[in-house]
Amino acid sequence: MAELELIEAIQKALSERAGIVRGPGDDAAVARTPGEVTVTSVDAVVEDVHFRRSTHSSADIGHKALAAALSDLAAMGADGAHAYVALALPPGMATTEALALVEAMERLAERTGTTIAGGDVVSSPALVVAVTVTGWARSEAELAYRDGARPGDLVGVTGELGGSGAGLLLLSGTEVDLPGERRTSLLERHLRPEPLLATGRALAGAGATAMIDVSDGVATDAGHLARRSGVEIEIEAAALPLQAGVAETALAAGRDPIELAAGAGEDFELLLAAPPERRADLERAARAAGTRVTWIGSVREGEPRLLLLDERGRVLALGGYEHLREPR
Amino acid sequence: MAELELIEAIQKALSERAGIVRGPGDDAAVARTPGEVTVTSVDAVVEDVHFRRSTHSSADIGHKALAAALSDLAAMGADGAHAYVALALPPGMATTEALALVEAMERLAERTGTTIAGGDVVSSPALVVAVTVTGWARSEAELAYRDGARPGDLVGVTGELGGSGAGLLLLSGTEVDLPGERRTSLLERHLRPEPLLATGRALAGAGATAMIDVSDGVATDAGHLARRSGVEIEIEAAALPLQAGVAETALAAGRDPIELAAGAGEDFELLLAAPPERRADLERAARAAGTRVTWIGSVREGEPRLLLLDERGRVLALGGYEHLREPR
Repeated sequence: MAELELIEAIQKALSERAGIVRGPGDDAAVARTPGEVTVTSVDAVVEDVHFRRSTHSSADIGHKALAAALSDLAAMGADGAHAYVALALPPGMATTEALALVEAMERLAERTGTTIAGGDVVSSPALVVAVTVTGWARSEAELAYRDGARPGDLVGVTGELGGSGAGLLLLSGTEVDLPGERRTSLLERHLRPEPLLATGRALAGAGATAMIDVSDGVATDAGHLARRSGVEIEIEAAALPLQAGVAETALAAGRDPIELAAGAGEDFELLLAAPPERRADLERAARAAGTRVTWIGSVREGEPRLLLLDERGRVLALGGYEHLREPR
Repeated sequence: MAELELIEAIQKALSERAGIVRGPGDDAAVARTPGEVTVTSVDAVVEDVHFRRSTHSSADIGHKALAAALSDLAAMGADGAHAYVALALPPGMATTEALALVEAMERLAERTGTTIAGGDVVSSPALVVAVTVTGWARSEAELAYRDGARPGDLVGVTGELGGSGAGLLLLSGTEVDLPGERRTSLLERHLRPEPLLATGRALAGAGATAMIDVSDGVATDAGHLARRSGVEIEIEAAALPLQAGVAETALAAGRDPIELAAGAGEDFELLLAAPPERRADLERAARAAGTRVTWIGSVREGEPRLLLLDERGRVLALGGYEHLREPR
């Protein structure tokens, strides 16, 4: 199928476009600007670097690429979104597969109030999906940045961790006796993560002073907050909320569950800092958004870094740039 | 060099960011919204598909990727621009090369009033550069779309054509005796095309009813205008303004100069339709922007397609979807 025919097929797979004056088919997409500030994020994923086509279906790849980009908007507390998708397709990839990728993206887009407004389709030796998402806010003060953490703040995380890492272990052949639902949840967490847009808006509105999505693992991501805010962050490993099945899967693979919860990443939960007096507001906001906040650490003056501590206060890992590897 | 260090080096290479509340380094970039509507275009280029690293330097690749994306905004008559860049870098590519690519992009960005506001850097088996550019307009009526051509309109093109195709022939080893400056101009046209942002705004303001940038060649691009506008467009091959040196280079390569002018593409000139009564205004606007308009054809009722005619009125090519190939 020629590139332009594929583009037409893709356009048909996309739904009505709210706020879009001109969608795909012109030189550029034209959208009405609903807010004072735009919030934009770019996320690119590459075959055999970020996913394998042997374990990830085209639909998984499309869903996850958009989810990862939207998760960055969630972490800002931004509202609404348009998405622009650059698809670099390898010669061996069937048109049906390319369409399945876009259709899964479109389903996630519809569910999250996102409009796929434009893109580009090119040939490539390997599958690359680069997604640019744009959201809006009424003012820049509404948003939560990485640099707002202050000494005395609590550090919390939404939902549960380690599920994506455990899901990847299952995909990679780790054998473990898990109830079917639990296994499915771990696989879904890895293959079909949900961007927490409503949660992010609720938490930013309820007083989160700093926020980041858990894409690299809380150790690394808290390290980003620490460095950008110029503060030291302590996280207690034992406080990390493990998704059901993570401990069993880690054990079966000879890995530490804490490693999956703190270091594997791609859970796309939200990590936040906030003053203790906002604790109840944030818990309420999270509940209203259908999730919960677990308080896992605190912020203090010190070297801009993350300290991951075991129950006896020993440092398991320092999170700055580096990923958490082999915590002992 | 680790990915995050490279990202830091890239950030240092970028200049101050007008209108950007938060640039690279947070989950997403935050920009103030200057206009009522946003205009967004995505352009992806892939190694060995759109360029070869043997003939295109890293700086050429970066420049051209941004230029191609900005050219789409130019074709809408959009104002200002932010750029978001996804860089997928192959293992063999040195950090100095990646930086040279970004620095060339930054130089073009500065010259065109564009701000590189964010992006992503990932590993990849092949070099892929995906650029998303965003511009603004005060209202959607200010913009020129592909579907505005009406029967009776004139069809014009800015500047000169065929230079990019001739430049590619020179890069590919075509031997031809050309004055040094002329050779350089052809190579520059291919390697370092200029997006005509000011020209596009001027032409949209002076009454162009439809506009598109010449990225695929006027035959194909006029075909897009015809199809989107539901009109037939006739272009006279003999009227196409050839860049100096195109005829000689085509001859040396055994190619028809018209093929390069109408079919090779990547000249990034602007092709427009407008009612005859706006002719003088458009010529004046083009001159004020430092270029000229050559009138090469006309619009009439009929099958939505492009007819490229020779001097005796014979059809050399039909432009719809297909690229112009081997016109006889």
